[in-house]
Amino acid sequence: MDCIFCKIKAGEIPAQIVYRDDEIIAFRDINPKAPSHLLVIPNRHIETLADLKEEDTNMIGRLVLVANQIASEEGFSENGYRLVMNCREHGGQEVYHLHLHLLGGRQMMWPPG
Amino acid sequence: MDCIFCKIKAGEIPAQIVYRDDEIIAFRDINPKAPSHLLVIPNRHIETLADLKEEDTNMIGRLVLVANQIASEEGFSENGYRLVMNCREHGGQEVYHLHLHLLGGRQMMWPPG
Repeated sequence: MDCIFCKIKAGEIPAQIVYRDDEIIAFRDINPKAPSHLLVIPNRHIETLADLKEEDTNMIGRLVLVANQIASEEGFSENGYRLVMNCREHGGQEVYHLHLHLLGGRQMMWPPG
Repeated sequence: MDCIFCKIKAGEIPAQIVYRDDEIIAFRDINPKAPSHLLVIPNRHIETLADLKEEDTNMIGRLVLVANQIASEEGFSENGYRLVMNCREHGGQEVYHLHLHLLGGRQMMWPPG
């Protein structure tokens, strides 16, 4: 595998991992766009949102619930936060391993990029 | 209920509804920030992301899968798109009925607002 996120998952590239279970890991973005900027990813290598199948429904829901839990733990749930998922070129996807951005700790603006 | 999205769901306020099932509806944002800008919402009134419970996992996953399906139908899945969920003030949430933004048809920028 030449995927940077698979290498983070495997411990081959260092990252500040804040959550880990059998299905999902979360770690800090190395180029943060907010005081707290985390990435929540499935352990399984799925390239894009558009590659999801119906059997992934529960896993996708869990990505969001794990993000909510991290927002609480990081202390910015009450003030609020933004979740973003980018699909392919127009979405601005840079790493082709599905990931959810969790951004908190500042006022997010509109439009969202 | 004084919720504008509940009124859209009930047909009391007009909207361009593009998807409807027992659990979810999707309609066009009246203040679009991209050539295609849709909102995907649970029929049930849930105020914010932070109010989700574990039993909502499947519904949340389905919001994303419905967004993917709409992206295909609208013809911008291959070029790509962005999904955004805003929670409370710092997230920029304006309507306190949980919703997922689907934005496609143009290059999305970074940071995401």
